[in-house]
Amino acid sequence: MNQVNNTIKRLKELDATVTRLGHITALLEWDQETFMPGGAVEDRAAQIALMMGLHHEKIVDGEWESLFAQLGYDVDDSPKEMNPIDAAFLRESHKRWKKKIRVPRELVENLARETSLSQSAWVKARKDDDFSAFAPHLETVINLEREYARAVAPDGDAYDTLLDEYEPGATGSQIASVFDGLAAGLRELMDRILSGTAPEAGFLEKSYDISLQDVFGKKIQAFMGYDTNRGRLDLSAHPFTTTLGPDDVRVTTRYDENLVLSGLLSNIHEAGHGLYEQGMGENLRGTLLADGTSLGIHESQSRFWENTVGRSRVFWDFWYRDFQRLFPEHLSGVGTMSFYRAANRVQPSLIRVDADEVTYSFHIIIRFRLEQALISGDLKVAELPGAWRDAYQELLGISPRNDADGCMQDVHWSVGLFGYFPTYALGNLYAAQFTIAMEDEIGPLSTIIGEGRAETVLTWLRKNIHVHGRVFSPDDLCRHVTGKPLDPVHFLDYLNGKYAEVYGL
Amino acid sequence: MNQVNNTIKRLKELDATVTRLGHITALLEWDQETFMPGGAVEDRAAQIALMMGLHHEKIVDGEWESLFAQLGYDVDDSPKEMNPIDAAFLRESHKRWKKKIRVPRELVENLARETSLSQSAWVKARKDDDFSAFAPHLETVINLEREYARAVAPDGDAYDTLLDEYEPGATGSQIASVFDGLAAGLRELMDRILSGTAPEAGFLEKSYDISLQDVFGKKIQAFMGYDTNRGRLDLSAHPFTTTLGPDDVRVTTRYDENLVLSGLLSNIHEAGHGLYEQGMGENLRGTLLADGTSLGIHESQSRFWENTVGRSRVFWDFWYRDFQRLFPEHLSGVGTMSFYRAANRVQPSLIRVDADEVTYSFHIIIRFRLEQALISGDLKVAELPGAWRDAYQELLGISPRNDADGCMQDVHWSVGLFGYFPTYALGNLYAAQFTIAMEDEIGPLSTIIGEGRAETVLTWLRKNIHVHGRVFSPDDLCRHVTGKPLDPVHFLDYLNGKYAEVYGL
Repeated sequence: MNQVNNTIKRLKELDATVTRLGHITALLEWDQETFMPGGAVEDRAAQIALMMGLHHEKIVDGEWESLFAQLGYDVDDSPKEMNPIDAAFLRESHKRWKKKIRVPRELVENLARETSLSQSAWVKARKDDDFSAFAPHLETVINLEREYARAVAPDGDAYDTLLDEYEPGATGSQIASVFDGLAAGLRELMDRILSGTAPEAGFLEKSYDISLQDVFGKKIQAFMGYDTNRGRLDLSAHPFTTTLGPDDVRVTTRYDENLVLSGLLSNIHEAGHGLYEQGMGENLRGTLLADGTSLGIHESQSRFWENTVGRSRVFWDFWYRDFQRLFPEHLSGVGTMSFYRAANRVQPSLIRVDADEVTYSFHIIIRFRLEQALISGDLKVAELPGAWRDAYQELLGISPRNDADGCMQDVHWSVGLFGYFPTYALGNLYAAQFTIAMEDEIGPLSTIIGEGRAETVLTWLRKNIHVHGRVFSPDDLCRHVTGKPLDPVHFLDYLNGKYAEVYGL
Repeated sequence: MNQVNNTIKRLKELDATVTRLGHITALLEWDQETFMPGGAVEDRAAQIALMMGLHHEKIVDGEWESLFAQLGYDVDDSPKEMNPIDAAFLRESHKRWKKKIRVPRELVENLARETSLSQSAWVKARKDDDFSAFAPHLETVINLEREYARAVAPDGDAYDTLLDEYEPGATGSQIASVFDGLAAGLRELMDRILSGTAPEAGFLEKSYDISLQDVFGKKIQAFMGYDTNRGRLDLSAHPFTTTLGPDDVRVTTRYDENLVLSGLLSNIHEAGHGLYEQGMGENLRGTLLADGTSLGIHESQSRFWENTVGRSRVFWDFWYRDFQRLFPEHLSGVGTMSFYRAANRVQPSLIRVDADEVTYSFHIIIRFRLEQALISGDLKVAELPGAWRDAYQELLGISPRNDADGCMQDVHWSVGLFGYFPTYALGNLYAAQFTIAMEDEIGPLSTIIGEGRAETVLTWLRKNIHVHGRVFSPDDLCRHVTGKPLDPVHFLDYLNGKYAEVYGL
C-alpha cells in the first residue's frame, strides 16, 4: 500500500504542474480580454499556443503511463477501500490521460488552426450577414470535431463523446428526453403568460450611470460572499469567470448605460461562478479535482444566484431601497413590485443572451437539436439557416430576418464547441432541484434572503456542492445532494409558481 | 552554407520558445505588481518558479549543444562573411547556453530559495531597523553569489562575472577608474553648488491631485512617442518597465499627492525604458537580440528622457503653461525659471531614489565600492553598516542615523543583485555622451524640444540605439554611436553647464 501511496503522490505532482500550466494560460487569456494592448493580439495567440502545447506535453508525458501501470489495476475501477478523493483523482486523471493520448498531435494542431480561422471568418460573416462565407469553415470544423470524437471513442456516438467534454457522463438521448419534457411544460407556461398583460418596464430602459451601476454591482457581489482578496472584478466585452490559481478567481462584467438590469445580472451570474471556484475543498487544492464537475453544474451556481436569487421578489424587497437611492430620478414612483415584475417580463426574442427565464431554454433546445443533427450528418451545413428559422418559428413563434441574428449569433460553433449549449439549460434544471434540497435543510429562501443572510445560502452551497469539486460526477452530485437524478419538473414548478405571481396567472 | 542556415534557423526556433516563456513570466510578474489579488501571492510564486524552471530547461536542452557542434567552429569567432545579426545571435545564444549549463541545478534552486527568504527577512529587518536580523541572510546570499560566479567562470574575478550579467564586457576595475574620475568632478561641482543659494521649492511640496498628475503624465508619455497600442501605463508600488511581447511593452508609475515631480519624472523615466523596448528592430523580433544590450544602456534611455529632457529648461519652457493650467492654485505667481530651478535643486541626502542629478552618482559609487568589497571578502557583512556610514560621510558629508535608511534602504543585495548598481550611474554617462552625438547630427535639443519635436529625438534614438537591441555590446554601441569609449567627462560637462544656469555659478 505504501507503494500505491507513493505512486499516487507522484501522479499528483505531475498533475500539479499540469494544473499550474492551465492557470498560467488562464492569466494570458484573462489579460487578453481585459488589459492587453491591441497591438499584442498576434503574439498573445502564439504565447497561448505555446502554453497549450506544454500543457498537452505534460499530460501525455510517458511517466503517467508507467505510473498508472504500476498501480496494477484498472483505475476506473479502483479498490473500495481507497479514500474517495484519491479514487476520484485516479479516475479523472486517468480519463484525461487516456483521452489525450488518443488524439494525434496533428489533429490537435489542425483543430487549433482551423477553429482560429473559423472564428475570424465568423466575426466577419456575422457582420456582413453572409452565411455562405462562414459555411465552408463550419463544415471543416464539424468534420474535425467528428474526427476528434472518433479518435477519443472509435465506437462511441460522436455527439455523446463531444458532450462528455462539458457534461461528463451525459448522453444526447438522455438530454433529448429531458428537453422534450421541458419544452412541453415551458410552452404551456409561455402561452398562458403571453395571453396576460406584460408589465410596464420603460424605466429599465433609461440611461443609468455606469459608475453607479458598478458601485451597486460590487455591493451585491460582496453580499453574495465573493471574496475580492482571492479575486477581482474587471470589465470585458463578454463577461466571464476564470481561475488563475486556488486563491485567484477573477470575474468580469460589462455595463451598458441603457441595460442596467443586464449589467447587474451579469455581475451576479459571474460571481455565482466565482463562488463555486472559490469554494473548492482545501483537500483538492492544486489538483484537477479543484474545478467544476461539469459546465451544467457550474451554470447551476451562476443561474441560481442570477435568477433564483437576483430576480426574486425577496431579493428586491431587501435591496430595492438601496438601488432606488442610487437612481432616484429613474425610479421615483416605481414600487418594489413594479420593479420586480419588470425584471421578469417574458418576451419571445431572437437573441439568446437577452432572453428571460421562461424563453431562455427554447434557445438552448433549438441549438441542441440542430448541433446533434449537424454532427450526425442528418443536417447539412447548407440547410442550417433554414432549419434555424423553422425551429424558432415552431418553438418561439418568431423567426430571424437574417442569419447574423439567426444561426450566426453565437461564437460557439465557430470554435468547435459542440455539446456545450445544453449545459446552459441543464444549469437551470440543476439549480431548481438543488434549491428544493437547500430549502428542506435551511428553510425558505424568502426568509433567508429577506433577512439578508446570504452567507447561510453560501454555506449550504459550499458544503453540498462547492467543496466537492470534481470528486462526484454531475449525476452523482445531483443524487448525493437531492437524492434523485435530474428531473425538469422542479424547474417547471419553480417557474409556474413564480410567474403566477409576476403575471397574476 | 545551406546546412549552416538550417542550423541557425533551428537555433532561432529554440530561442523563440525561450523568449516567449520569458514574456509569459513577465506577465505573471507584471500582474503580481499591478492587479493580482493579495490572496494569490503564494501560488503566484509557484507559478513563476514553474515558468523559470521551464525557461531554464529550454535553454539547456541537449539540442542546443548538438546544433552548436554542427556549426563546426567556435561561435564566438564566427566567420567574417556571416551577416551581423546572425553572428550576434550565435554569440549571444551561445554565451547564454554556455553560462546556464555550467550552473548546477541545485545552485539555481538554492539561489531562488535563499534570495526569496532573504528578501522577506530584508523587508522585516528594514521595518524594524534591525541589521543583525538581516545579516545572516545577506551572508548566505553573498556566498551563493560567489559560488555562482565560480561556476560560470572558475578562473575569473567573481565581481566581474556578476557584473557581466548586467553590463556585458564591463569589469570592476574599468568601472572603478571611471567612477574615480566622476567622483572627483562631481565633488568639485557639488561644493560650488552648496556654497550658493538653494532655489525656493516650497510650491513643489504642496498637495497635487493625483488624477491630474496622471493626465499630465500620460500627455508627456504620448509626447515622447510611447505607443499605448503596444503598451500601457498602470500603477505599482515601485515603477518598472516590462516586455510581455514584441508589441506589448508596459510601464508603471506611482503618484503621491505630495511628490508631484517625482511622479512625473517616474512617468518619463519608465516611458524612456519603454521606448527602447518598443523600438527594437523588426529583424530581431522574437529573438534574444530584441532586448536592451545592457542595463547601463537601458538606463541611458530612461535617464536621457527623465533628466536631459524632463528636467531641462527647454522642456519646461514648452510644457510649463499646460502644467500650470492644471494646477493654477499651486503655481500662480511661479514663473518657468523658478519652477525649473526648483526641479533641479541639489541637496545631499541619504536616500538614493530621491537624489538629484548631481548627488545621485555618489549613492551609486558608494554601493559599487561596498559590493565589490563584499564579494571579494575584503569587507565582512558585519562591517557593512559602519563602512556605509563612513562612505556617506566621506562623499556626501552626511551619514544615516539608522541602517534602515543606510545599508538596508535598497532591495538589490537582499535578492542577490550584485553588480547591478553601477549600471544606474553608467546610464547617466552614456546618456550625456549619446546626447553630444545626437546634437551633432540633428542640432541642439534646446531648439528641437523648444519646437515640440520630440519625434525627431526619438527617430535618432531609434536609428542609432533602439533598433540594434543586443547586436552590439554596450561598449561597441558606444563606439559605434559616439566614435569613442565611454568617458565621464561628457556627463560632467553637461552638469557643469546646466548648474551654472540653475545656480548662477
